[in-house]
Amino acid sequence: MSLELTQNQIVDEDQLSLNLIEAQYLLKNTRDQKNAKSVMILVNGIELAGKGEAVKQLREWVDPRYLGVKADIPKIFNPQQPFWQAYANAIPATGQMMVMFGNWYSDLLVTAMHVSKPLDETEYDRYVEDMRAFEQDLKNNHVDVIKVWFDLSWKSLQKRLDNLDPSEVHWHKLHGLDWRSKKQYDNLQKLRQRFTDDWQIINCEDEQQRDQQFAQLILTALKDCPEHLSKTRTKWKQAAIPESLLQPEHTSLNHEDYKKALKKLSRKVAKALRCDERRTIIVFEGMDAAGKGGAIKRIVKNLDPREYDIHTISAPEKYELRRPYLWRFWNKLQTDEDITIFDRSWYGRVLVERLEGFASPPEWQRAYDEINRFERDLVQNQTLVIKFWLAISQDEQAARFKAREETPHKRFKITPDDWRNREKWDGYLQAAADMFERTNTSNAPWHIVATNNKYTARLEILRAILKQLNAD
Amino acid sequence: MSLELTQNQIVDEDQLSLNLIEAQYLLKNTRDQKNAKSVMILVNGIELAGKGEAVKQLREWVDPRYLGVKADIPKIFNPQQPFWQAYANAIPATGQMMVMFGNWYSDLLVTAMHVSKPLDETEYDRYVEDMRAFEQDLKNNHVDVIKVWFDLSWKSLQKRLDNLDPSEVHWHKLHGLDWRSKKQYDNLQKLRQRFTDDWQIINCEDEQQRDQQFAQLILTALKDCPEHLSKTRTKWKQAAIPESLLQPEHTSLNHEDYKKALKKLSRKVAKALRCDERRTIIVFEGMDAAGKGGAIKRIVKNLDPREYDIHTISAPEKYELRRPYLWRFWNKLQTDEDITIFDRSWYGRVLVERLEGFASPPEWQRAYDEINRFERDLVQNQTLVIKFWLAISQDEQAARFKAREETPHKRFKITPDDWRNREKWDGYLQAAADMFERTNTSNAPWHIVATNNKYTARLEILRAILKQLNAD
Repeated sequence: MSLELTQNQIVDEDQLSLNLIEAQYLLKNTRDQKNAKSVMILVNGIELAGKGEAVKQLREWVDPRYLGVKADIPKIFNPQQPFWQAYANAIPATGQMMVMFGNWYSDLLVTAMHVSKPLDETEYDRYVEDMRAFEQDLKNNHVDVIKVWFDLSWKSLQKRLDNLDPSEVHWHKLHGLDWRSKKQYDNLQKLRQRFTDDWQIINCEDEQQRDQQFAQLILTALKDCPEHLSKTRTKWKQAAIPESLLQPEHTSLNHEDYKKALKKLSRKVAKALRCDERRTIIVFEGMDAAGKGGAIKRIVKNLDPREYDIHTISAPEKYELRRPYLWRFWNKLQTDEDITIFDRSWYGRVLVERLEGFASPPEWQRAYDEINRFERDLVQNQTLVIKFWLAISQDEQAARFKAREETPHKRFKITPDDWRNREKWDGYLQAAADMFERTNTSNAPWHIVATNNKYTARLEILRAILKQLNAD
Repeated sequence: MSLELTQNQIVDEDQLSLNLIEAQYLLKNTRDQKNAKSVMILVNGIELAGKGEAVKQLREWVDPRYLGVKADIPKIFNPQQPFWQAYANAIPATGQMMVMFGNWYSDLLVTAMHVSKPLDETEYDRYVEDMRAFEQDLKNNHVDVIKVWFDLSWKSLQKRLDNLDPSEVHWHKLHGLDWRSKKQYDNLQKLRQRFTDDWQIINCEDEQQRDQQFAQLILTALKDCPEHLSKTRTKWKQAAIPESLLQPEHTSLNHEDYKKALKKLSRKVAKALRCDERRTIIVFEGMDAAGKGGAIKRIVKNLDPREYDIHTISAPEKYELRRPYLWRFWNKLQTDEDITIFDRSWYGRVLVERLEGFASPPEWQRAYDEINRFERDLVQNQTLVIKFWLAISQDEQAARFKAREETPHKRFKITPDDWRNREKWDGYLQAAADMFERTNTSNAPWHIVATNNKYTARLEILRAILKQLNAD
């Protein structure tokens, strides 16, 4: 359904401004509240239609302190980055509005029109579908996404080009398209019609009407503060807990054999990680003291610290809580580093946040699909995602906790929280079981590794990395 | 004084680890305290000396959650960016440590060795001097900077190259230097000796000693939590308040003439801003209701919102308070945008923060020089800094406040704080006077504009921008 607003009323400007400001303050005041939201406005359209003017006019009507404007020059897609990567940083915090001139749709159009081997229709439509799924995830996580297409007929465009002040030509050349070419104009219109079904379309023949229409639809979006779902629709179906979690295998290996195998394997892993063209993301989850740190140490043994990033994930900061929960991970992937290791990860959403009630049932139950889409976007962009659950028995954990308490330089690793978390052991196993069932995808499978014996566990982890590097 | 640690004791590893962790927690606990600090460790040295290994070993001894590692590939200086720009984002928050492999010194070395027209000695030494001044400013703002050079003799380097595992050659090629060339080695040593006077030098012939020495000097740095100055050394000399602030000129202009002049001038300004090769930063300071917003509106009148950034500066967020106060501005300049406008700015340090006591006397009194260095770094890197103080009389301000209160869509612009701030009117004038006296530099002069009449004020601002654009 295309929302072309044809009959538009011109309202009193002062009144419109007042309404906008009031709505902005309403939005601002949702910050840190249950119904918190932010508004992201994607702006695209025909050159000279007046996107810039409409945004400038909006900026004059609202309180500019709470309206961000981000303008990126459209870029051809980077095959190693999901389409949202370059824009993740600009996603507004709750209470804020952000206008984005450059966005994933402008990149899509530029990619479709500029590359030597253009996207075929299937690829193009898949992008559009992925973008909509991403936007839906944003909406579910309190970021309202408004999409506005500023349209202009071929005839009007030509007339505006004729009347263009020569001093402004400089700017209009920037976009690298020939707006005198009817063929190109038609192509662009055809392409954009493949995604503008759910956009607001503004006909920009009349400038005053254009600015008012834009402001009015922003006003509507601002006013519409949804009550977020607090109940789930369906009853949760608990997955069965796999035996590998209930009874992690007890294995043994003598120190000599371990040392020998480790030396060989860790060299192989370093080499394989280095030589792979793809980016690699390695995720560790598991109970406290299951051996995440030790395993990571062996992975990076033959790497230089300049070759990898390790992120140790703990509770989010306040400014992170004002964004979708995946946001802080999107930002951590905005790097040139080819190897990224997460000691705990986005799976916290369906583990600790579920158990501790930081995420409501609708939130964590929705998260599995969101995480799957996130990982799929990575995998589709030349990234390998390797996920480990380190399975330890409750007795072995207790023994390690005690050993930590008795070793001065390891004491920092153990806190009263760790002992308390043991009381939720069964809850964590259930959460882990649900997580495996729902996020063990072909894109990014889980490896469950028994870690009662650290030696065999570490070797198994290295072998699994090698295998996934070579097999994929 | 070069701090070559020759007689180094090898201490028990567990004890060293314990000491490091305790010192880390001490550091961590300074967060949000009066003696808060963070530690930034700049790491450079000869290839194969073992920087990477030493950092990896350190990471195993400390609590890795509070040790960040950043590794940037050295880059030739970008003539449009101060040397610190690319690294500003990595400056650790109080309570944190950050190891930086890539840093301004590696960029300096690469620039000196790689460019077709190498830096002459004067330029090179000026860079070193600027870097030291920047680091001193960091230290004064709670960021301790530790610099460590990992040294290796020519003979040992050649021996290590001979014994290099072929699978590791990949990594060592990255740096783009020929480590078999004695000439290049000598050149590098000569160059680095021009800045390593105040570095810690680690002789890396022995690996165990190297790692211990590195860890021990980090330990020393961590333990040394300075009490920050709370008293100033000298009595503050209050500047005389200029007449232009005490009695802002009353001017007049009829609406027609204003409109005509505005149209012409704002086009000229837009064109001049667009065509200038340099980046332009325009700063507005002044009492509330002095007309900052209105002036900005006229500057951008003929620009497209995609061509500029406007930052409206209010109180810093908590995560910003954990960094040097200029940090949030450094980050705002990390953009491709050529035109950046600040509605209030870093001068808040010597205005509102001084008046409200958010900055202590030693802090704001030191800030003038820090700000001057910051602006000088910008100006030396093809950036124009244009600063305005909008001077309004107390009566005119009261009239504008009342008008705002009576205009519904302007009411958001006025808060009880604004009325309260009027009580500090004289204090603000004194602070402004001090600011002019100390920061009215040839690099970035102040323009004091009387704004009791909005029309003449706006035209004067546009003319001043034009003049500075053309004159510089």
